[in-house]
Amino acid sequence: MNQDVPYKTYLTEAELPGAWYNLRADMKTKPAPLLNPGTGKPMTAEELNHVFCEELVKQELDNDTPFIPIPQEVRDFYKMFRPSPLVRAYFLEQALGTPAHIYYKFEGNNTSGSHKLNSAVAQAYYAKAQGLKGVTTETGAGQWGTALSMACAFFKLDCKVFMVKCSYEQKPFRREVMRTYGADVTPSPSMETQVGRKINAEHPGTTGSLGCAISEAVEAAVTREGYRYVLGSVLSQVLLHQSIIGLETHAALKKLGVKPDVIIGCAGGGSNLGGLIAPFMGEKLRGEADYRIVAVEPASCPSFTRGRYAYDFCDTGRVCPLAKMYTLGHDFIPSASHAGGLRYHGMSSVLSELYDEGFIEAKAVEQTSVFQAAEQFARTEGILPAPESSHAIRVAIDEALRCKAEGKAENIVFGLTGTGYFDLTAYQSFNDGKMSDYIPTDEELAANFAKMPTL
Amino acid sequence: MNQDVPYKTYLTEAELPGAWYNLRADMKTKPAPLLNPGTGKPMTAEELNHVFCEELVKQELDNDTPFIPIPQEVRDFYKMFRPSPLVRAYFLEQALGTPAHIYYKFEGNNTSGSHKLNSAVAQAYYAKAQGLKGVTTETGAGQWGTALSMACAFFKLDCKVFMVKCSYEQKPFRREVMRTYGADVTPSPSMETQVGRKINAEHPGTTGSLGCAISEAVEAAVTREGYRYVLGSVLSQVLLHQSIIGLETHAALKKLGVKPDVIIGCAGGGSNLGGLIAPFMGEKLRGEADYRIVAVEPASCPSFTRGRYAYDFCDTGRVCPLAKMYTLGHDFIPSASHAGGLRYHGMSSVLSELYDEGFIEAKAVEQTSVFQAAEQFARTEGILPAPESSHAIRVAIDEALRCKAEGKAENIVFGLTGTGYFDLTAYQSFNDGKMSDYIPTDEELAANFAKMPTL
Repeated sequence: MNQDVPYKTYLTEAELPGAWYNLRADMKTKPAPLLNPGTGKPMTAEELNHVFCEELVKQELDNDTPFIPIPQEVRDFYKMFRPSPLVRAYFLEQALGTPAHIYYKFEGNNTSGSHKLNSAVAQAYYAKAQGLKGVTTETGAGQWGTALSMACAFFKLDCKVFMVKCSYEQKPFRREVMRTYGADVTPSPSMETQVGRKINAEHPGTTGSLGCAISEAVEAAVTREGYRYVLGSVLSQVLLHQSIIGLETHAALKKLGVKPDVIIGCAGGGSNLGGLIAPFMGEKLRGEADYRIVAVEPASCPSFTRGRYAYDFCDTGRVCPLAKMYTLGHDFIPSASHAGGLRYHGMSSVLSELYDEGFIEAKAVEQTSVFQAAEQFARTEGILPAPESSHAIRVAIDEALRCKAEGKAENIVFGLTGTGYFDLTAYQSFNDGKMSDYIPTDEELAANFAKMPTL
Repeated sequence: MNQDVPYKTYLTEAELPGAWYNLRADMKTKPAPLLNPGTGKPMTAEELNHVFCEELVKQELDNDTPFIPIPQEVRDFYKMFRPSPLVRAYFLEQALGTPAHIYYKFEGNNTSGSHKLNSAVAQAYYAKAQGLKGVTTETGAGQWGTALSMACAFFKLDCKVFMVKCSYEQKPFRREVMRTYGADVTPSPSMETQVGRKINAEHPGTTGSLGCAISEAVEAAVTREGYRYVLGSVLSQVLLHQSIIGLETHAALKKLGVKPDVIIGCAGGGSNLGGLIAPFMGEKLRGEADYRIVAVEPASCPSFTRGRYAYDFCDTGRVCPLAKMYTLGHDFIPSASHAGGLRYHGMSSVLSELYDEGFIEAKAVEQTSVFQAAEQFARTEGILPAPESSHAIRVAIDEALRCKAEGKAENIVFGLTGTGYFDLTAYQSFNDGKMSDYIPTDEELAANFAKMPTL
């Protein structure tokens, strides 16, 4: 193996970023504010403080401060799993016979198995600092719930997780990791909340959705003394915390003297993509550098490529504020054949605005081709990727093959957000040749668009 | 957090060891040779070449060469997951309130989830270099089978795994990872081999054992053209490859200026313990330094603490050579209540000889206390440990508490061999308060000793 650069690049602990980067500070058009669904007016800090921790509300509403210091306790926790490696995919390049140089930032080397821990520890820290008893949240595929359980165990906070019922049943091991970290895990929709009982009554036998679980978690937070709600994606505060991914990637590439041509991330609610691209997008917005930035989403949940840019509810139960985002409608639930995460109906307001302004490209890919990429990656690079991350792998491979056809030695960087240890039911379906693809029809999408609020 | 040293220490790629260390070269009394069960004479290279790859047979029989170069292809593969971090367990120390300094070498950051990959890639490489079509092996808890599947996928070798039937049924996800890497996985005892059919006939409904699966894998190798058998523990060649763990640990501690007082490893067949302690034991044998070296085994499978040091069969089906080792008898199968690995009836001949000469201490621990340690570790250090590794955690915590009681700031180093992602059935049983302990009676052990060969 001829190496230009090390196979893995680690920053030292001293080189760990001391502050998160707030991309909004460099956006000329700021993301649209959250609205109070009752009044149609922007949510105030006071209103949001009922649901979220105070410091996190400040971060949510702060469109101006470019760098926000990372508290020492969070930096200490980060040292358990950060800096994460930036890997040069020499073996994948070799297998593809491409002149492209492929790099990936691997966020899966922690027990929660994904990048979600970056924001979980920040949110748990601020909850503890505010003197709260506990937090509530929802989880779908389970990455976020696991990450939050770990963070809460560390800071000795109660952690109540509403887990989408079909995941709760299909992923008992995910549930068990959360329990090992002391979390209380409830299948959603449950009978514990008003909104859960209502959804169960209206849709008997439903196996739940992320939108329902959010509604339940928010209700559980606001009706309990000393609890707040926390969310693992979509919100601007989450993108802020996840900027650690991009800051480390940026610093490592700089050390290697490598300038990326294209940066690729999978996109569900936007937590990973928004974090990975943050400092690069900042340079792009400030006119200091240019990069192609590609969001990859499932063809079965295509919010960027087929959604509308409009105000919509963040949850099925309509208990949350309205957000302006690319959305498939708050009632949209991906087909049962869809494996893994990236199943949220909307997309971060920050990323939605940037996409609308043309700073981001988007591609939708079908899951069979995603798992083909996952298998090739696993066999060559030795890491079993999460289905979510494999969306980015699919497009990274496609880009590398384009470079091969064009004879170009471009630098391709993608985010490998997590591992697939808890997604083996999906792998089994792929290994058995039983995986299918699903693309929603225009009629299905139109039916959901029709139910969106009109503002 | 006040830090004396970084939380994690990584060697650079340039600092990766270029050769494995062969501990046998420094042993005054060499480990007893493998014997041909038919003749009672030492196995020759020619005899062993029918079962094992030629280069590996050379390594198995080489008691003299202290350093054996690591082939470039293996070093390249190692870069995918090595160097592994040496972690200072600051958070665990804090939780225990101990003046001791605790370090662990974490081998779980690869898809196979354990240190087994260190030897799997070496064995697959030599098989490929010899022009073989494929290899056969057995797996119990699944770590070794997964590691070998990954290595075979990389070198494009067929991989046939006999998986102990109870694990095959209880760990479908382990099986699915191996399938994703293209391995052919068969529950053992199977009807595919003569020895499997015999064991099935004699013990109808048996859920298998590691000893049975070894017999089947060996038979499958010797009866197929272009196949050889490979083994993930016990053999001296495996300890040689695993010395990479100890060499990296030794180099990292040297960089930090830290001299360990006690080095702790879990011990099943001895692959991790033998690898972790290798260079330290070398110094001890050469009289250059002294360390306490502690092997930790399950009280339910106590080969060191209650076994006999004698020649015994390596497998239930008696198709393998005889090895002199601490053994519970080749018919010993741990109680069904025993979770995780460390269930082999014998122990590496190298370690057995060193233990017999008093260079190693051994402790047996019960699994409930092991999972208590695992839970505490997971919640403070953020890594969900494998049940096997948690045996070492248990004793590391006990040693740290002893240091607290004695007011001593000793340096404790232990091997964290892997992660527990595929052991969540065991964690669930612990979380539900349903885990039980089992210690074999003297009568049970005596019955198995009685069946051992007399030499």
